[in-house]
Amino acid sequence: MTNNLSLTSQLDFLVEVDKMKNVLRANLLFDNSRRENDAEHSWHFALAALTLAKHAKERINIDRVIRMALIHDLVEIYAGDTPWGDIPAHEHKAEREKEAADKLFALLPAGQSREFRTLWEEFDKMETPDARFASAIDVFMPFFANHKTDGGTWVSFKMTRDRVYKRINIVKDTIPSLWPFVESVIKDATNKGWILNK
Amino acid sequence: MTNNLSLTSQLDFLVEVDKMKNVLRANLLFDNSRRENDAEHSWHFALAALTLAKHAKERINIDRVIRMALIHDLVEIYAGDTPWGDIPAHEHKAEREKEAADKLFALLPAGQSREFRTLWEEFDKMETPDARFASAIDVFMPFFANHKTDGGTWVSFKMTRDRVYKRINIVKDTIPSLWPFVESVIKDATNKGWILNK
Repeated sequence: MTNNLSLTSQLDFLVEVDKMKNVLRANLLFDNSRRENDAEHSWHFALAALTLAKHAKERINIDRVIRMALIHDLVEIYAGDTPWGDIPAHEHKAEREKEAADKLFALLPAGQSREFRTLWEEFDKMETPDARFASAIDVFMPFFANHKTDGGTWVSFKMTRDRVYKRINIVKDTIPSLWPFVESVIKDATNKGWILNK
Repeated sequence: MTNNLSLTSQLDFLVEVDKMKNVLRANLLFDNSRRENDAEHSWHFALAALTLAKHAKERINIDRVIRMALIHDLVEIYAGDTPWGDIPAHEHKAEREKEAADKLFALLPAGQSREFRTLWEEFDKMETPDARFASAIDVFMPFFANHKTDGGTWVSFKMTRDRVYKRINIVKDTIPSLWPFVESVIKDATNKGWILNK
């Protein structure tokens, strides 16, 4: 369709990633109407990161965080979403996602392929300040949604308070001003029986 | 829920913008399965801008463009989507969207409210290189989707070639390397009867 090779492969990539709109996550929309998909989640994550950037404890580059948000779930087009609460599904998650990354990022011109993949790997390792802040927002958003949707996936996966604390703990060190809110949510959800008291 | 006032209003804002996931656009997903919503579109637009950034003719700041993509349709939570093809709906679009902006951005702390609103207004005016490039991507994505979905909104709104050219023309000056592809799509869609030959 075009005789510019880079552009042709970039357009193919943009068609392929449209499939993110059909990858369903376990959590619900805030109005409890239906499950969220990966494309919507990625947008909400990016906007939440931008909105909450000034609360980051470490020095972060918010524009790198936003780019991570845009691409962090692309591998799920082939690997599928692996809900945090679905423990057996995690067994081969890393291999599935690596294979998916090999396939998806190969659609792009070589330089851009490396750039996107490197950023995804940085996010996935959660070692840099940008990746840690991104991960905190990524974990916080479905936590927040669960509290707005009668317990959401806490209820469907019979979550205990210990596991919820372990999962959300990254917020404590990366966005400390958000931590009192997180603790008030866990207390409220446990009182309501949405999170199991153990 | 928190005694940090800025944070409380930012969390309220993040709950409110979840409604973007229920604002339906006229165009379809690339697989023709259903209509796209504003949240999905905003994510796809941001990722497309990042992917195609090197093709921009003018010097742009891609991270500003991405931020525009994330917030450009927020006013539609209250103002609704106004499909390009729906001519009568455009009559009070500007007033509707200004009122929506007054309401939505007021949820944020003052400094951030001004920052987001200023960026939305810059996008809306299409005068700066960043806003022009953003607008070109915003227009190109549903154009591209129409070609993958048997004509999509070109067919439903009985679009003529003249109007399609007028709408997509911004791509010509902002992303010239994409223009031959645009022209080939219009030619093909006209041959197929999806765009009226006038």
